[in-house]
Amino acid sequence: MYNADTIISLATPPAESALGIIRISGPLSAALCNSIFSLESPTPRKSILKYYKDTENNIIDHVIFVYFKKNNSFTGEDMIEISFHGNMIIANQILDDLILRKCRLAEPGEYSKRAFLNGKFDLTQAEAIAELISSKSEAEIQIAKQKLLGRFKNELLKHRSKILQLQTAFEAAIDFPEDDIKIESYDNKILVLNDVTKEIKKLINSSRIKTSLNNGIKIVIIGPPNAGKSSLFNKLLHEKRSIVNDKPGTTRDYISEYIKIGKFNIQLFDTAGIRSGKSLNEDLGVELSLEMIEEATILLLVLDSSTPYPSDFKSKTKEALLNKNIIIIENKSDLEKKICPNEYPPSNSTLSASIHHERCSEMICDQILEELDKLYPNDNFNDIIVNKRQMIHLVEASKFLDDSLDLIKSNEPEEFILQKLRLSIEAINLIIGESTNEDMLDMLFKNFCIGK
Amino acid sequence: MYNADTIISLATPPAESALGIIRISGPLSAALCNSIFSLESPTPRKSILKYYKDTENNIIDHVIFVYFKKNNSFTGEDMIEISFHGNMIIANQILDDLILRKCRLAEPGEYSKRAFLNGKFDLTQAEAIAELISSKSEAEIQIAKQKLLGRFKNELLKHRSKILQLQTAFEAAIDFPEDDIKIESYDNKILVLNDVTKEIKKLINSSRIKTSLNNGIKIVIIGPPNAGKSSLFNKLLHEKRSIVNDKPGTTRDYISEYIKIGKFNIQLFDTAGIRSGKSLNEDLGVELSLEMIEEATILLLVLDSSTPYPSDFKSKTKEALLNKNIIIIENKSDLEKKICPNEYPPSNSTLSASIHHERCSEMICDQILEELDKLYPNDNFNDIIVNKRQMIHLVEASKFLDDSLDLIKSNEPEEFILQKLRLSIEAINLIIGESTNEDMLDMLFKNFCIGK
Repeated sequence: MYNADTIISLATPPAESALGIIRISGPLSAALCNSIFSLESPTPRKSILKYYKDTENNIIDHVIFVYFKKNNSFTGEDMIEISFHGNMIIANQILDDLILRKCRLAEPGEYSKRAFLNGKFDLTQAEAIAELISSKSEAEIQIAKQKLLGRFKNELLKHRSKILQLQTAFEAAIDFPEDDIKIESYDNKILVLNDVTKEIKKLINSSRIKTSLNNGIKIVIIGPPNAGKSSLFNKLLHEKRSIVNDKPGTTRDYISEYIKIGKFNIQLFDTAGIRSGKSLNEDLGVELSLEMIEEATILLLVLDSSTPYPSDFKSKTKEALLNKNIIIIENKSDLEKKICPNEYPPSNSTLSASIHHERCSEMICDQILEELDKLYPNDNFNDIIVNKRQMIHLVEASKFLDDSLDLIKSNEPEEFILQKLRLSIEAINLIIGESTNEDMLDMLFKNFCIGK
Repeated sequence: MYNADTIISLATPPAESALGIIRISGPLSAALCNSIFSLESPTPRKSILKYYKDTENNIIDHVIFVYFKKNNSFTGEDMIEISFHGNMIIANQILDDLILRKCRLAEPGEYSKRAFLNGKFDLTQAEAIAELISSKSEAEIQIAKQKLLGRFKNELLKHRSKILQLQTAFEAAIDFPEDDIKIESYDNKILVLNDVTKEIKKLINSSRIKTSLNNGIKIVIIGPPNAGKSSLFNKLLHEKRSIVNDKPGTTRDYISEYIKIGKFNIQLFDTAGIRSGKSLNEDLGVELSLEMIEEATILLLVLDSSTPYPSDFKSKTKEALLNKNIIIIENKSDLEKKICPNEYPPSNSTLSASIHHERCSEMICDQILEELDKLYPNDNFNDIIVNKRQMIHLVEASKFLDDSLDLIKSNEPEEFILQKLRLSIEAINLIIGESTNEDMLDMLFKNFCIGK
């Protein structure tokens, strides 16, 4: 066994609640059932109600514990799960007692790392667990689940097996060099290689979607001053569940909050009104608003329909608004319309609204959702979407496959081709974890949450 | 059955973590094992790894679930515990799905209420669970545990049984009125009644301790200006684990923070320096400091030993400091001593210190701990300490017992005595929950946390 330590950790959040769970994993587990609960060989997987008694035989709590035999546990080691009354003092008393009994606190991700090392799942599935837990939207959950179910691993194995077949074929070509067969079959091999490379590049491209989901999809409210931007911002915040987030979002020039629309995790920005600056400060505000237009996935352009389209706003933003996804909201629709739609920038849709009206934010959200569904079609979330580490190795694999294609086309010796194919397989092995190194594993698992 | 609803709730805190637990309790549980996990009659208490599939057969998560048969579950009803990846979106997906399957979200304390109504424990034990979970110190945990283990209930049953015996005796006296026996045995009955009443009054008194523990034991730092009060405050904060607390503690005139010394939960106050006011504001500050002296359990009087004891401080505080638990800290002990201890108020102990020195706060904490151990001797936390609801009924019980004693002594008819005894038993029954009413139960359980 690679590691004889028995590790312990709180598996639930450190706060007051009905229940808390502490998990023990490692060779001491069986002995601990005996010393703590006086049960020499508890039935594996059975919930047992017992007093947790510390080393001095004082009752810490009335708990339910479950013993898991290795080979049938999360980590692949003997484990105990203890469910106690959800108070952090009790949690600490139990953890302190377990430390006295020669356990040690687990590092972040150490349970998953052991599960991986014990062959319970591959690295893509291990990463999927961490991604699942830290997901901030249903879309991310859906994406993580695909990998947790092993779909990414299976796809990689499929590609690898094709490359391995090519490898075998080239090795045969070295052993039995018959020129005629060689040229004929090379065409076929080029087809296979092209196919695999194309699939891998599709995976590489998927990482762009993941990035935009991770940071929240940016929706920016822009418009001239006093058009109703802040009212819209507040209305959307108020009516949509706001998401707890630790990034500071408020500066002098814009405010941002996380909200959820449909299954999407949105970072909503309210910007300074854009007009010709009367002071340097105002010009800086406009500068920033223009930057945010650049970064936005969707722009909500709020206009006051009771006044003409302001010419300074138009001139300042004309260029920035080209080729953006814009939803125009003609606010103050209950007043006489003086704005002329001919002057608008090209937009995806225009809504006539009065932001203070009851149904207004629902209408706007529906429109946003329609745009998002177009940008991130539902099916995408059932596709594999790779993370950064996976992408880096996929880029390597794809580069080596491209190299091998070049070598084949320029009729280079099979040995050189084989080397490139081997390197591409190695890159795939790094993704699923059939090749690893300690640094890579440390990097990967330290991003997991405590207790996982 | 009193309630046919199947209730559901998150049992762990609503935050990102390795695991989250959802608990289902009620008659639908067995059917849900079948519809969600395709297991018609799962082995009770066994941890089973399964995909949680929603009503449309989509996988929500890979979970572990445990089925508990009624009579062998927390609530006394059929239950399911589902352990999922600790993400709140997943939690909500599962809860939403369970609502579609005809479950409803549980009220706070509803699991415990059902457990109580199904006779799994008495009311004092139900309350102990809530007290255990919300405990902010090891002392409170210890106190709650005594009740959870049924010690309070057992003590009440012992008292009740004595009163019941008296009741039987008085009833016999009515049925067989033989005057001689009556007077003789009444002496004995008075002894028993006195004894029970004394025990009940001891329980009533215990509630004072509980109150002081709940709010944190108040330790107030006082002293003349520039004696080193704030340095001591910061040093104690810095070196002791500070406790998260949601009560605002900072005002213009004092600062307060929660810290832990030994097993005690301390609310530490730093007050304005006390001297003759040069302004009305300063006088108000002094006024407040004097109020806080009044409320303090322990006072840390910080003095600058390199200057004489300030006469204005002495005159302002002389009266307030009488009969208080005072630890005097002669600060700046590395300078020449000019202060005269004869002038000090009566104190429990005097420490010579230099607050900036390394071991100073340890020395002061040791002294505080010694005082606290005297004030709240260790054994106290193994005594029963009642809560407010319990105290109110104990006061009633004790009043009816006093009344019955008076009636006995003034030779009133047994019927009157019996009525008082019955009322005292009724009060005890209300504490353990053998008598209840819906309002009382609602009041009691609504203070529980969600999921318990």
